[in-house]
Amino acid sequence: MNREAIERAIDYRFGNPDFLRQALTHRSHGALHNERLEFLGDAILNCTIATLLFERFRSLREGELSRLRASLVRQETLHRLAEGMALGDHLLLGEGELKSGGFRRPSILADALEAVFGAVYLDGGMAPAQAAIARLYGPMLAALDPAKESKDAKTALQEMLQGRRQALPRYGLRAAHGEAHAQEFEVECRIDDLGIVTVGSGGSRRAAEQEAARRAIETLERK
Amino acid sequence: MNREAIERAIDYRFGNPDFLRQALTHRSHGALHNERLEFLGDAILNCTIATLLFERFRSLREGELSRLRASLVRQETLHRLAEGMALGDHLLLGEGELKSGGFRRPSILADALEAVFGAVYLDGGMAPAQAAIARLYGPMLAALDPAKESKDAKTALQEMLQGRRQALPRYGLRAAHGEAHAQEFEVECRIDDLGIVTVGSGGSRRAAEQEAARRAIETLERK
Repeated sequence: MNREAIERAIDYRFGNPDFLRQALTHRSHGALHNERLEFLGDAILNCTIATLLFERFRSLREGELSRLRASLVRQETLHRLAEGMALGDHLLLGEGELKSGGFRRPSILADALEAVFGAVYLDGGMAPAQAAIARLYGPMLAALDPAKESKDAKTALQEMLQGRRQALPRYGLRAAHGEAHAQEFEVECRIDDLGIVTVGSGGSRRAAEQEAARRAIETLERK
Repeated sequence: MNREAIERAIDYRFGNPDFLRQALTHRSHGALHNERLEFLGDAILNCTIATLLFERFRSLREGELSRLRASLVRQETLHRLAEGMALGDHLLLGEGELKSGGFRRPSILADALEAVFGAVYLDGGMAPAQAAIARLYGPMLAALDPAKESKDAKTALQEMLQGRRQALPRYGLRAAHGEAHAQEFEVECRIDDLGIVTVGSGGSRRAAEQEAARRAIETLERK
């Protein structure tokens, strides 16, 4: 285990390197493995990304923040970050996993990275753990474009339904209130095959459709 | 809104009461509602409960910690806590929700309580938010019995399968290693109808069965 390389990537120096060692130990390698640390690190990661997104994207709604967070904490993203810091070179694996290339397995790498966050928490507390996450995710967060992230719920919904080989949603105006210069539109989004009907409102028909689509995505994701 | 009653329940005094007011504002009441705060508070709650469980239950495994946490952060539990502090009396609801008794709706109360945690975070930072959660959950956490929480995975699995009207699992010994005084058992749990086979190990046959059952539950929950 080359501690320094990892410490550099997360900009944190361990007081007790045993925590880091445990974070890098897969259960195939020994009894003191990283599964509990992964539980801890996963929770801290979720929370830290939530606070970072909350503070950065002041105008995004809850559903949009949730989806952004999901994209940042999913295995694929963690795997990419773990590869960027060559975490696989430092894993402690059992013989079977070593032979079958476990150090390249996305799930093992993603879990180990979460465990590293848990290890920082145990070693230094919440603030250093959050700082390590902010540091590692910094470039990825900086690259997020709030306008882009929130604008294409209709497209996202269409792609989800196409992926499931289901009929496309239909949008319909339910009501429009107010004077011409300050109208409020209410639009519904129907997915008949799934019995889903959601309603969105907004200052334009398009904005209302986007909200209805976002709600439909949330409903679909909960199914 | 009676601020003092809520502040007493969570043992926190707001510097800026506007945060609390927003946390108690349902979207039916106005534009400055609590949905984003709920997103934030939910994340902080999950993380805080995770760290509290991690520290209290040193011998529980990741899957058991996850299940315990799920039981503590689910809507039903939050609803009960919100009722205990009479949060419904302080909610700001739109007219429609008021008439239909929205101040008693479990989802509205649970969301508002999460938003209160988010408000404490914005007002005071992470440490006060965690302290407020620890204070509110204190009696519930103290009442948890680690032995009890972890002992009945076989029962839980059986109940899950019965709930789905599926055949019960079968357990079988795969191997036993070691001397008589320090044997290690390996047991499999088969749910034929679902094509699930999991393996558990432990110092007794019973402990190994419990672990196999816990893994089967995790597999089922992921399906």
